[in-house]
Amino acid sequence: MTDGATLKIKAQIMLGDEIAMGPGKAALLEAITREGSISAAGRALGMSYRRTWMLVDTMNRCWAQPLVETAAGGRHGGGARLTEAGARVLAHYRAIEAQLGDAQEGTDWGVLRGLLRDLPEPSRST
Amino acid sequence: MTDGATLKIKAQIMLGDEIAMGPGKAALLEAITREGSISAAGRALGMSYRRTWMLVDTMNRCWAQPLVETAAGGRHGGGARLTEAGARVLAHYRAIEAQLGDAQEGTDWGVLRGLLRDLPEPSRST
Repeated sequence: MTDGATLKIKAQIMLGDEIAMGPGKAALLEAITREGSISAAGRALGMSYRRTWMLVDTMNRCWAQPLVETAAGGRHGGGARLTEAGARVLAHYRAIEAQLGDAQEGTDWGVLRGLLRDLPEPSRST
Repeated sequence: MTDGATLKIKAQIMLGDEIAMGPGKAALLEAITREGSISAAGRALGMSYRRTWMLVDTMNRCWAQPLVETAAGGRHGGGARLTEAGARVLAHYRAIEAQLGDAQEGTDWGVLRGLLRDLPEPSRST
């Protein structure tokens, strides 16, 4: 259990009913850069192989250009990295999140914080 | 299916692991004001009786003062309305949401919009 009060803000870029970009997909793009492969990135984030590839597939179907490129490389199998479009999309998404973070410093959140208990009362329902 | 690209932003006020306020609970508070009773508000939002009362219970356990007061009233059963604390919490939450809405007008979202397809490509997975 996480103690204390937090204001959680989530930005999702929707295209039709699909989530083209959100916290999970942004984390995956960053992990791909770090790990150098899609499967390793998924493993590092504790996601199943199937879910990892579904996120990549959804991004590919939503954005005009691929965000991730794979290399059919060498004896250890291919790696993966962000395309220029992938790096741009990730950077602009993170910029939106940073802008949203300003609300964390706002007076409305300050007031609401003061109206919360220190911890939730335990639930009495069974 | 909703056509086109949208930037969806969700604010959740967490207390420990509980959601003290979010889009669903704010909608419920507004429906209570409109409908004059908790059950009618839940029905108006298409929520089950159980879920409606769970949301109210969670709010009561998270905020120092009750956000909703019920009246053990008259021959038609009791009604409900927001307390002063309830009205304040709702107003500040909506103010945070309005502030977040500024990101909808930002340049980052403008750039990202331009990088999306018009619609997602159909999924080829079975």
